[in-house]
Amino acid sequence: MTVSELPLDRLSIHQATLMQCDFRESIECFARHGVHQTAIWRDKLEQIGLDEAVQVLQGNDMKVNALCPGGLVTAVDDKSFNAALDMNRRWIDQSAALGADSLVIITGGLPDGETNLTVAHDRALEGLSRLIDPARAAGIRLALEPLHPMVCGGRSVISTVADALDMLDDLGADDVFGLAIDSYAVWWDLTLPYQLARAGSRLLHFHTSDWLRDTKDVRFDRGMPGDGVTDNRQIRGWMEQAGFAGPVEIEIFSERDWWQRPPDEVVETILERREAWL
Amino acid sequence: MTVSELPLDRLSIHQATLMQCDFRESIECFARHGVHQTAIWRDKLEQIGLDEAVQVLQGNDMKVNALCPGGLVTAVDDKSFNAALDMNRRWIDQSAALGADSLVIITGGLPDGETNLTVAHDRALEGLSRLIDPARAAGIRLALEPLHPMVCGGRSVISTVADALDMLDDLGADDVFGLAIDSYAVWWDLTLPYQLARAGSRLLHFHTSDWLRDTKDVRFDRGMPGDGVTDNRQIRGWMEQAGFAGPVEIEIFSERDWWQRPPDEVVETILERREAWL
Repeated sequence: MTVSELPLDRLSIHQATLMQCDFRESIECFARHGVHQTAIWRDKLEQIGLDEAVQVLQGNDMKVNALCPGGLVTAVDDKSFNAALDMNRRWIDQSAALGADSLVIITGGLPDGETNLTVAHDRALEGLSRLIDPARAAGIRLALEPLHPMVCGGRSVISTVADALDMLDDLGADDVFGLAIDSYAVWWDLTLPYQLARAGSRLLHFHTSDWLRDTKDVRFDRGMPGDGVTDNRQIRGWMEQAGFAGPVEIEIFSERDWWQRPPDEVVETILERREAWL
Repeated sequence: MTVSELPLDRLSIHQATLMQCDFRESIECFARHGVHQTAIWRDKLEQIGLDEAVQVLQGNDMKVNALCPGGLVTAVDDKSFNAALDMNRRWIDQSAALGADSLVIITGGLPDGETNLTVAHDRALEGLSRLIDPARAAGIRLALEPLHPMVCGGRSVISTVADALDMLDDLGADDVFGLAIDSYAVWWDLTLPYQLARAGSRLLHFHTSDWLRDTKDVRFDRGMPGDGVTDNRQIRGWMEQAGFAGPVEIEIFSERDWWQRPPDEVVETILERREAWL
């Protein structure tokens, strides 16, 4: 399978890739290098506030693919569960105000003291089903993202594309729910080509970074595409064969390396890597 | 599902759990606490040599469940690949000399420079198929162990029970090949009960430790059963429903914690945890 080079207008860079920047600095940096798509990191949005965020985005001609992350609805006690639902309704409204296509959803992990995955899974299913109406009303897609099994305990009880698809089947609202695929989370799955083909029109987002062979952290040691073992271009090919035509969204959580560098260097490196690795 | 308490005669402790000990110290420590089953860690065997190892085992009435780890046959260049096969033939013979039931097999990860999982998978399949005859001749089972997806790059391209079963189907030698299940590697899999039921009589070994919620390393920060989020007793129940009646083998890689403690304390803690957590 030959996959063509990614055009610049299909490149998006997530704000989380420039965690060293505040909201405005990251957006201005992307725009300065001709990148006009991003995803918004909730913490950065909180810091600047919605009104100013919208101004910065419009002033830099910046398209928002998604707000990240929503969901986190596995709490067993009703008070925490309902509070999480309230937060999600707020994030849905924020997503709409930002002009985003989607709110990216991670289910949340095992609640404290819980060791039964099925309990957490069923709670997440219940929580997400309650977000269908508000998302539909706001015109926002909810993009369920399976995370790597190494963060199952703390972040997501959905660890594979297969399990995410099963959850979407259970939710039964394909006009609202779809998938966000992160190559870092799923590259190890031998059945990935089949699962992506099965996903088809449910594929809403494609996040990429790289798995470093000597990775030192379960969350914040992601690599720059080309530095690790993930064949991102092959995975993009599988996505496109399944019908996906959206942007490649670079999302690099890198506490030790890329978050320590000057932001212009990070973006320039991504642009260089586009030719061979995206 | 109610799962009964694990009797002491079904408790095994791997030598790797006492990495702070040499071969003799670990075996004597297990025996001192009434534990008479273990698995042998290859490096420790190399240090003491086969003849003395056998003497130590016999002198302490120690049953060997398995030698760990074998396999590692994903090298693409023929020289390295053939060298790996030679080593495995040697480990099979050592397993027989130790009176072990099995050699535990991990496939190996992606060879340097390789990003195509299928290439590594197919190489592993080829390599393992060449071990069928020597293992059969030696009366040693080969127990394929899926490892956690976070070590896919470096250690194992087989990350799920489902993929391991598919590989066993491809190998087509059920008198030789079976499965080693490590709860640490597979607890996150929502389809695990189904996969274990599917595995049935292929279940040869059950390794346990615990997944710590704040795990700090991708290989050497495993927890003591009861300290994390893994419901080992439930997983044992699924194993037993599928027909498994073998020992529970404690395998804790813990560079920061349990490998730093006095070995007697480690074994005493395991014995205490048996009541509620194994």
